[in-house]
Amino acid sequence: MPMTPVPLLVSTLLERGALLAPQEEIVTVGKFGTLTQTYAETRRNACKLANALSAAGVGIGDKVATLMWNNHRHQEAFYAVPSMGAVIHTLNSRLTGDEIAYMIEHAQDKVLLVDSDFVPIIEELLPRLPSIRKVLVCPISGPWQSQSDMMVEWEQALEGQPDQYEWPEIDENAPMGLCYTSGTTGNPKGVVYTHRSTYLHTMVQAMTDAVSLSATDCVLQVVPMSHVLGWGYPYTAGMLGAKQVLYHGSFDAELMLDTMVEHEVTFSAGVPSIWLMVKDAYTANPGRWDLSHLQRVNCGASAPARSLIRWYWENAGVEMIQTWGMTETNPVCVTSRRIAKHRFRNLPLDQQIDNMAKTGLPLPGIRFKLVDDQGNEVARDGETPGNLLVRGPWVCTNYYKVPDSDSFDNGWLLTGDIAKIDKEQYLIISDRQKDLIKSGGEWISSIDLENHILALKGIAQAAVVAQPHPKWDERPVAVIELAPGASIDTEAILSHCASRFARWQLPDDVIFVDRVPLNSTGKLDKKSIREMLVRQGYKLPGVSQ
Amino acid sequence: MPMTPVPLLVSTLLERGALLAPQEEIVTVGKFGTLTQTYAETRRNACKLANALSAAGVGIGDKVATLMWNNHRHQEAFYAVPSMGAVIHTLNSRLTGDEIAYMIEHAQDKVLLVDSDFVPIIEELLPRLPSIRKVLVCPISGPWQSQSDMMVEWEQALEGQPDQYEWPEIDENAPMGLCYTSGTTGNPKGVVYTHRSTYLHTMVQAMTDAVSLSATDCVLQVVPMSHVLGWGYPYTAGMLGAKQVLYHGSFDAELMLDTMVEHEVTFSAGVPSIWLMVKDAYTANPGRWDLSHLQRVNCGASAPARSLIRWYWENAGVEMIQTWGMTETNPVCVTSRRIAKHRFRNLPLDQQIDNMAKTGLPLPGIRFKLVDDQGNEVARDGETPGNLLVRGPWVCTNYYKVPDSDSFDNGWLLTGDIAKIDKEQYLIISDRQKDLIKSGGEWISSIDLENHILALKGIAQAAVVAQPHPKWDERPVAVIELAPGASIDTEAILSHCASRFARWQLPDDVIFVDRVPLNSTGKLDKKSIREMLVRQGYKLPGVSQ
Repeated sequence: MPMTPVPLLVSTLLERGALLAPQEEIVTVGKFGTLTQTYAETRRNACKLANALSAAGVGIGDKVATLMWNNHRHQEAFYAVPSMGAVIHTLNSRLTGDEIAYMIEHAQDKVLLVDSDFVPIIEELLPRLPSIRKVLVCPISGPWQSQSDMMVEWEQALEGQPDQYEWPEIDENAPMGLCYTSGTTGNPKGVVYTHRSTYLHTMVQAMTDAVSLSATDCVLQVVPMSHVLGWGYPYTAGMLGAKQVLYHGSFDAELMLDTMVEHEVTFSAGVPSIWLMVKDAYTANPGRWDLSHLQRVNCGASAPARSLIRWYWENAGVEMIQTWGMTETNPVCVTSRRIAKHRFRNLPLDQQIDNMAKTGLPLPGIRFKLVDDQGNEVARDGETPGNLLVRGPWVCTNYYKVPDSDSFDNGWLLTGDIAKIDKEQYLIISDRQKDLIKSGGEWISSIDLENHILALKGIAQAAVVAQPHPKWDERPVAVIELAPGASIDTEAILSHCASRFARWQLPDDVIFVDRVPLNSTGKLDKKSIREMLVRQGYKLPGVSQ
Repeated sequence: MPMTPVPLLVSTLLERGALLAPQEEIVTVGKFGTLTQTYAETRRNACKLANALSAAGVGIGDKVATLMWNNHRHQEAFYAVPSMGAVIHTLNSRLTGDEIAYMIEHAQDKVLLVDSDFVPIIEELLPRLPSIRKVLVCPISGPWQSQSDMMVEWEQALEGQPDQYEWPEIDENAPMGLCYTSGTTGNPKGVVYTHRSTYLHTMVQAMTDAVSLSATDCVLQVVPMSHVLGWGYPYTAGMLGAKQVLYHGSFDAELMLDTMVEHEVTFSAGVPSIWLMVKDAYTANPGRWDLSHLQRVNCGASAPARSLIRWYWENAGVEMIQTWGMTETNPVCVTSRRIAKHRFRNLPLDQQIDNMAKTGLPLPGIRFKLVDDQGNEVARDGETPGNLLVRGPWVCTNYYKVPDSDSFDNGWLLTGDIAKIDKEQYLIISDRQKDLIKSGGEWISSIDLENHILALKGIAQAAVVAQPHPKWDERPVAVIELAPGASIDTEAILSHCASRFARWQLPDDVIFVDRVPLNSTGKLDKKSIREMLVRQGYKLPGVSQ
């Protein structure tokens, strides 16, 4: 072997950030106020935490779960747990108690790190969690109390622990993180990230052509750190030594805007509904916030409307960068930049926005296959939909403790998405397989309809779901949430849709609701929407019984 | 293993560029004119070349040598040879015939790819090169002829070959490239690059905080592709699908400036003497060239003068990015950006330039040790010099076929450089160990003196070398090449130095020469300079005998 490979370990990247930027700030912002500490302090606290976990019996390969908001303590756990060779298992606070208990039991977590708001949930679950030996409670959210002697205040657990820890040089293919997907069928599935996969994902995220992350950025972390490791940004910002602002607690658009101004935030990431709410708050308060420092925002998890992308560029000079990925892909696989190719550098703005509205171009190392139901590759002509498969150095190849899942085929992940790829190699996600609407043997894309409706002024959220139809199998129905003060009627929405879609593709009905249900990761919760319609005994117009 | 690792292969990266940017241009510019082809054509030709090499008996692990200028055929070889699992061995055309013969024999190259100018050299050497089975001659430089039936015209060798090749999925730790260092003691040493090391180097070079390389760039490749694989840019630009302009033949500053304007070059790289010549040509012809597209230049191999960095920023709005590396490090390990940290974003220009004049900050994955002669780490205070050791995923850990070189210690490379590291973690290369001047037990840095002298208007090159001294061991002497038309005398140079250096650090003498000798990679050739002084019977002033 001509070169002894240096293992790709997460500790190497985090130690770099702490070494180069010891005085840089990691700020936690919440409704309680602001807490600021440096990278050097974060590293010291991470070492103390590692020593405390070690004393609690956590060794290489053991799992440590977190049920936490975004904050500096969570960042310390992101640092300490993988660096000491253990595995960080992030739990989503929007899950039910049963789901949380299932995941902890399935993962056999040894220690649990929680914010104080979640103490009551955990206290109730503890009798069902035999693998848990200790619970560290972070009191940022407020005071707490518990009858359980397993619960210890975070600071108390760290007291007296040495502030150095020699991170072990372990196998780069060892696990470092564990997330469960909010799977819609069967039990949630665990996805394991390795040091190698997260290291390579972190490197790619710092590329100019990904989201241009830099040490000079101030990154506002609004994406929950429990959601696919915060989409990787805690690691990428941590490697670069960028300023980090961690948004703690439930979302408030005005607080987010205040925070962006106060900390001169240059980059943030979130789901489309976050960016819709920020836009609405901004336009409702003209001149209140100066967003001149904000350069780029990453919009992921589902596709932003073209109109939203354009609004950010034209009103705030902000490039909205679409990304696509899944829990199974660590997550980022594609990005869609305003000017993504040398040949595109003089494109007019309209065509730039056209490209930004496509899902994106594959990052280096990521490969796609687009196949029909027989497994044959389909044309990359931007027209032909196919089943999307993905392979790459940070794409998982099986589920945790599920030996033979049919989501994987010989190193390829079957994404469950229907997509097109155009001649420029842009991936265009058309739909989740289960969200496609099949009408008279033809597919109708609910996402295309939703995006088109969202372009109408006054629409806050739009979901298009299938409803059973005796003749056509399924027909689309639009479920609409209006912006405050807006008044749009069914006819306006349908005639707007008719400007682009064929008559048979138009929704059969429009239903106005106070709030369109979103799931724990901020995506449209189509399952709940369908259930809501069933509960209401909803029937399509013209369909009897 | 939770994830089956996808091997990190160079073919994956190059196939991405060809897939995403099939219509983008790869341009060869030389005194002969301009040749343009697309990425799609480059890929097709690379496949044909791989088939031709395969037919000539080249298999996985076999070496293919190149003795070529920068051009699209060389780029095709960079693509084809590693992708097919063979090893590309680049030879520097400035080497002597004996050196070339030694390297080919040592590497056991099977096929040789040459530009037509080099046919006479190779024809003479062929009887001494038993491992060579075939020589492909690229006729871009002009017509050629040979008596040898081993020599084949490139186009003829490719004729009829299929334009597809299934790149094998090999071990990522397999070799893909081989370069010999222009070692100053003993025989040249071979450095082997693996797929993994080059893949990771390519990823890091595309980072925002490295040199911000992007698909939207037009990269002018002036660094010889034979010099540490062209410092990696053929691979990084190739992965991104950026426009590439390959500068063929010997250097001409006016042709380089013409090329930068014509192709709207945004990025280029070269040694300090290149950037000095470009600057001189530019200032000698006011208004002739519009450099408004040029954004960044990388200056490597030796340290640019502070005045040069400042000139590019103030006169052309160009950020000169210093990098440091060696043949043994693939090469880039550090970069020095104008604004490298979040805390630095509001620094005044003078302090920005101060930082740019430091060698740079370690890229992610790169670690340094700075030790005294007993191997103990010295303070990172910006003051204390030490021996520099480096370790990282693209740093080699031994020489080719040299089992126990004392250049390596347990995975660390002993660079042979004397450096300081300051509190901000900037590496500051003080000197090559052998170029430090030891006077009365104290070290004098020849590089510091050279950079200071270069800041004087009218100095084209400055080398400071040690000369033996009976009392002080060694004393410095400055060897100076003036710019055309400049007239500066010894006193002016010494009084300029006295403004910064202590009296005992000043050169004992100043010698004016027509041309300061550079070695084959454009660095000061101090060995030749010292030999020149010996030949001339030079004695220090005041030293008898």
